[in-house]
Amino acid sequence: MNFNVAVIKGDGIGPEIVDQAVRVLDAVAEKSGHQFTYEQILMGGASIDAYGKPLTDETLEIAGKSDAVLMGSIGGDTSTSPWYQLPAKLRPEAGLLALRKGLGLFANIRPAYLYEELKKACPLRDEIIGDGFDMVIMRELTGGLYFGERSTEVVDGIRVAKDSLTYNENEIRRIAVKAFDIARKRKKHVISVDKANVLDSSRLWRQVVEEVAKDYEDVTYEHMLVDNCAMQLVNNPKQFDVILTENMFGDILSDEASMITGSIGMLSSASLAEGKFGLYEPSHGSAPDIAGKDIANPIATVLSAAMMLRYSFDLDEEADLIEKAVKKVLEDGYRTVDIMSDGMVQVGTKAMGDLIIERI
Amino acid sequence: MNFNVAVIKGDGIGPEIVDQAVRVLDAVAEKSGHQFTYEQILMGGASIDAYGKPLTDETLEIAGKSDAVLMGSIGGDTSTSPWYQLPAKLRPEAGLLALRKGLGLFANIRPAYLYEELKKACPLRDEIIGDGFDMVIMRELTGGLYFGERSTEVVDGIRVAKDSLTYNENEIRRIAVKAFDIARKRKKHVISVDKANVLDSSRLWRQVVEEVAKDYEDVTYEHMLVDNCAMQLVNNPKQFDVILTENMFGDILSDEASMITGSIGMLSSASLAEGKFGLYEPSHGSAPDIAGKDIANPIATVLSAAMMLRYSFDLDEEADLIEKAVKKVLEDGYRTVDIMSDGMVQVGTKAMGDLIIERI
Ligand SMILES: CC(C)[C@H](C(=O)O)[C@@H](O)C(=O)O
Ligand SMILES: CC(C)[C@H](C(=O)O)[C@@H](O)C(=O)O
Repeated sequence: MNFNVAVIKGDGIGPEIVDQAVRVLDAVAEKSGHQFTYEQILMGGASIDAYGKPLTDETLEIAGKSDAVLMGSIGGDTSTSPWYQLPAKLRPEAGLLALRKGLGLFANIRPAYLYEELKKACPLRDEIIGDGFDMVIMRELTGGLYFGERSTEVVDGIRVAKDSLTYNENEIRRIAVKAFDIARKRKKHVISVDKANVLDSSRLWRQVVEEVAKDYEDVTYEHMLVDNCAMQLVNNPKQFDVILTENMFGDILSDEASMITGSIGMLSSASLAEGKFGLYEPSHGSAPDIAGKDIANPIATVLSAAMMLRYSFDLDEEADLIEKAVKKVLEDGYRTVDIMSDGMVQVGTKAMGDLIIERI
Repeated sequence: MNFNVAVIKGDGIGPEIVDQAVRVLDAVAEKSGHQFTYEQILMGGASIDAYGKPLTDETLEIAGKSDAVLMGSIGGDTSTSPWYQLPAKLRPEAGLLALRKGLGLFANIRPAYLYEELKKACPLRDEIIGDGFDMVIMRELTGGLYFGERSTEVVDGIRVAKDSLTYNENEIRRIAVKAFDIARKRKKHVISVDKANVLDSSRLWRQVVEEVAKDYEDVTYEHMLVDNCAMQLVNNPKQFDVILTENMFGDILSDEASMITGSIGMLSSASLAEGKFGLYEPSHGSAPDIAGKDIANPIATVLSAAMMLRYSFDLDEEADLIEKAVKKVLEDGYRTVDIMSDGMVQVGTKAMGDLIIERI
């Protein structure tokens, strides 16, 4: 079969890591007989430089017509890059938000797990790590504070800024369904995170999650307050299987969770719409300080491509192929600098791509 | 001098830990010649049981007339306690929020530091801990999502819930001033945390913090995004001196920070109004499961009393006296069960109080 992939190389290390992911996809194509056709599109800083804004209507349209979007990281150094002199809605991140909304990417899936081989990089003590942890954060991505009305006004001579956090039951239900579906394929446990002792939106969240849970008798679930969850991630990450939460809490908790693994350069993410469409990108940022040096770790992007095969193209075997190749490379002792440790062989971005391809 | 202290014993372990703090204060009184007069008031679950609501007007009035409030933790087990069958605004936590607002307690100060003696309890690896960390989180406590308008409605047959996040420049300025003031007495570094790439309220926050920073040329400062801060706390806690942030972010980050120390039973907190008035309470919860067993750690509450002496009564020497006594008890090898480790002597709540008093 042929799949059309819209490719956003992005900023900073984006282009070099996406290049490796595309090479890996090509190797999979050769082996499997499937075909991937790429269309390069611009979003973020690169789009500002080319068109004066972080996302054009044409780009959004091309992305929407593709079968899936593969993306590197976007954005630059907020204190030195001229992109951050622009008004907020013309900055790189505004392009990402507009893309999420425009493509209806309401479900952000971020796996966070400990790689046995990279255990030493985990900031937590061995006693806490135990025999490892493996969770998925299911973050709502097109609602809440990110897309509420906002305003900054001068009232009686005083500046007042306002953001609003709105959720309706349909928005909550569809993300809860995704979380319980995924839990079913995993350890069958959902922890839904909210701040129901304070927020109306959290109380509705809880209600709807309870309604959805009724359809999943094989999945256990509990509610946890967001402040407690921020503690539990540090104290006992093993208790988590699927974390289900709203947009802003998900932003904070998924970053905390990925840092806890100690290897953020390895973590992929998927942002899904209704149906099969999705956008796939690494969990880490665009690291402008190391861009173009052939030292960035391409693995998170390569694994994002694997997620694309699995979730958008139903190519489970081919996704396995990539994931196993990555695992093999680690077992064989190869590391990029961010995950380097004693006794391992340090390699660059492209060489890491080669090593993965050799094992496919 | 005589100081009037309103005492809220609270729920769960609250009464037994507050008792120890009061005994310690009495020992300080005896030694220093100052006098503390206590008035017991009810808030939270105990107030629901007595008056049917978590905070009465009379209680708020008594608290407001005192020189400071000393409090244990409030609330119960949310799945079993009948308090949580009540509508949200009649639950224990609603009393706490009403008390904060009613007393104008806009500045929540939560120190989070590593006790050398309790290093082993820290969930982070020794390499990350290094020679320890010591930060203070300055959380805005009477604005933002906690006190915005909220509503839950059915619109076209669909449930919709809304919360709003509002800050005006005065609210931001007064908390920023507190943060820079405290930084001046510490390592002179403020990290202001926001989500300025998304929220209008965060962009105003940043602007006002920059304006305030101009008056503190001796204090360096930077801005950090909340998702990044959640990562940095795990990865490199040593970089933080004073963290300044809004209400909801502060709730999440201060809990994460206290868990990172590994000894939440040791951490105090102060919530200050304009002027000298404040409310002092431990950072931990009411732990209903261990209530009444004489095993809870009273140290966080004892240290909260020390903060009260320092911030509300200007009794720095007396505060030092308490803090040194606590340090000495730890050095001498005494531990409550939550911080127990090999070779130490395990003691109960009251015995821990005795040991601290002996050293005053
Ligand atoms: C760049 C920013 C707007 C974005 C977010 O907060 O969603 C990022 O932090 C992320 O998590 O993908
Ligand atoms: C009980 C709850 C409303 C409260 C808060 O979120 O402020 C608590 O978590 C705290 O941090 O003191």
